[in-house]
Amino acid sequence: MLGILETPALLLDEARMQRNVERMQARMDQLGVAFRPHVKTSKCLNVVQRQLAAGARGITVSTLKEAEEFFRAGIDDILYAVGIVPNKLDHALRLLREGCRLTLLLESVAMAGQVARHGAEHGVCYDVMIEIDTDGHRSGVKPDDPVLLRIAAALQGGARLKGVMTHAGASYDCTTPAALAAMAEQERSRCVAAATLLRNGGHACPVVSVGSTPTALSAQHLEGVTEVRAGVYVFFDMVMADVGVCTTDDIAISVLCTVIGHQAEQGWVITDGGWMAMSRDLGHDSHGYGEVCDGEGRAIAGLSFGKANQEHGVLQWMGDASVDITERFPVGSSLRILPNHACATAAQHGRYHVIPQNGGEWPVWPRFNGW
Amino acid sequence: MLGILETPALLLDEARMQRNVERMQARMDQLGVAFRPHVKTSKCLNVVQRQLAAGARGITVSTLKEAEEFFRAGIDDILYAVGIVPNKLDHALRLLREGCRLTLLLESVAMAGQVARHGAEHGVCYDVMIEIDTDGHRSGVKPDDPVLLRIAAALQGGARLKGVMTHAGASYDCTTPAALAAMAEQERSRCVAAATLLRNGGHACPVVSVGSTPTALSAQHLEGVTEVRAGVYVFFDMVMADVGVCTTDDIAISVLCTVIGHQAEQGWVITDGGWMAMSRDLGHDSHGYGEVCDGEGRAIAGLSFGKANQEHGVLQWMGDASVDITERFPVGSSLRILPNHACATAAQHGRYHVIPQNGGEWPVWPRFNGW
Repeated sequence: MLGILETPALLLDEARMQRNVERMQARMDQLGVAFRPHVKTSKCLNVVQRQLAAGARGITVSTLKEAEEFFRAGIDDILYAVGIVPNKLDHALRLLREGCRLTLLLESVAMAGQVARHGAEHGVCYDVMIEIDTDGHRSGVKPDDPVLLRIAAALQGGARLKGVMTHAGASYDCTTPAALAAMAEQERSRCVAAATLLRNGGHACPVVSVGSTPTALSAQHLEGVTEVRAGVYVFFDMVMADVGVCTTDDIAISVLCTVIGHQAEQGWVITDGGWMAMSRDLGHDSHGYGEVCDGEGRAIAGLSFGKANQEHGVLQWMGDASVDITERFPVGSSLRILPNHACATAAQHGRYHVIPQNGGEWPVWPRFNGW
Repeated sequence: MLGILETPALLLDEARMQRNVERMQARMDQLGVAFRPHVKTSKCLNVVQRQLAAGARGITVSTLKEAEEFFRAGIDDILYAVGIVPNKLDHALRLLREGCRLTLLLESVAMAGQVARHGAEHGVCYDVMIEIDTDGHRSGVKPDDPVLLRIAAALQGGARLKGVMTHAGASYDCTTPAALAAMAEQERSRCVAAATLLRNGGHACPVVSVGSTPTALSAQHLEGVTEVRAGVYVFFDMVMADVGVCTTDDIAISVLCTVIGHQAEQGWVITDGGWMAMSRDLGHDSHGYGEVCDGEGRAIAGLSFGKANQEHGVLQWMGDASVDITERFPVGSSLRILPNHACATAAQHGRYHVIPQNGGEWPVWPRFNGW
């Protein structure tokens, strides 16, 4: 298919993906927790089915569109892990009424009251998690903040407290196993502390949900935690390789592109894979728009992807100056780029071209985007 | 619709867009050139129909998907303005055979030969433009490079030379009217020089196509040019405002998002509009992920959008420290973000929610993405 497939195209190495899925599930089984993968990375039923088949229980979504799509495909245990707002409650209601076991997330007394009233008005009871901030990274209530009790108290009538959840996004900035293990323990202990505060206040808090790919792969134990969430591990990417929780040989997606020209005196190889195909995510900024490999996926030392326009990649040859780049990378030749951030790169595409494990046809797995 | 529309959502101010369309077309009419808008910005038939109705002749596309979609909608004069590669020739052939007047672009003797052979083998004749590099920004042949004559000579049999085209992408880095006018003149004069070289070599070169939004709006005259292309002018964005060819009042698209929470002690307002809704394009890096406005589109001094996760925007309050941000921007309230780069932000969405000019229903205009 290399040379035949229209480029740019998103390639998926199914064998690597399956290995990533099994590695994470085995780890969760060993740690004794349920695993609820975040499907925002793939937005692809074929991928999510592999995760469920391996033992995942339910899914995590980042949009109600994901909830909608996966519920239509028969997956009904869904955590919507972005703070709910009033304009999405009617949509959530529709899903509930159709039988979806949707769990909502919030972090304020005001929103807790609105969700409870909306549920009561429409004769449903929303399952709700409270978001806990365990690393100062983004949203959530501090684990020792007494407002937790007021939020729980507001979840009456049309809503009930299901538990607490946190995401240690700061783990993406860790770079040593020790720092990662410490971040995982901080995520665990603080989320458990929030649950304890709620339970001591008389509120049932059955679920304690933590997770990010780096902490899930670095936790030493998960006492008090009932479930873990992680997303990007399914494909991995250069950021995760930089963090140290995978190698480039684990990265399951890449963008196939084709050389369209050169500016030989500048050492530029121009391709048809620009930022539209890669996303503008520069990751930790050490790999430009992504790591450049040949058509078979082998890294090319000396070719860096520092500049991109919408449908043009500008690759800089930094290797031996005596190499004629127009001969080494001729017009029409294939390159593959490993993404900085799999979630961002995959979102630029509408399908995965699955590299067949034993030759033959290339299956196409659709993905969706948007809201 | 504010408060009702599910967020994040891409809003389009049709009145501003129409003003932008008419301003550009009037300028092109005055300069005496045909105008061929680049539809990669909108990828939306409703928008392109407005451009054609105003007087545009044909369209420019950045992908064969765009060519396909707009050809199916009845637009048949299409320039595919990214260097053609072998894996796309069969697709181009299908379009030609169905009656599409598709023009291809290339910049090498090798590709010219392949296109000509492909056309001859399949009994068609491809119209081809040669890309000219007028600013050292990206692709193309230098205007005085004798290889132009060899490329033209290779376009025999199944291909014919239609003309030369260039895009002065370096104009995005200009910031004064004088620099912009100089860049426009450089783009014009060098592209005309390439055409002259070809004509002096005995090759017909009827079309001389130049353009970028900044140079199109800054050219003092366009002697020798037959057509101009521009894309982002239809919506404009913060980068164009920084370049100085529009004001923020001309920006026709924005991303509507909703406040989902706060980290009050840090001055953070958290929204449901993250990088998935904005893209990762940081533009000239002075506006973060975009310029923050209230729900009606009025700029909010003191609120900056410096950090984003996939579905979370983290806005920093830099204003009066005595303001209670949880009251000023309560959970559930609406914000609108003006994009850094309209092409990148719009590409994250599947539709435009068109703000009605006289109240009433909000039309939805679909857009497509991908390849």
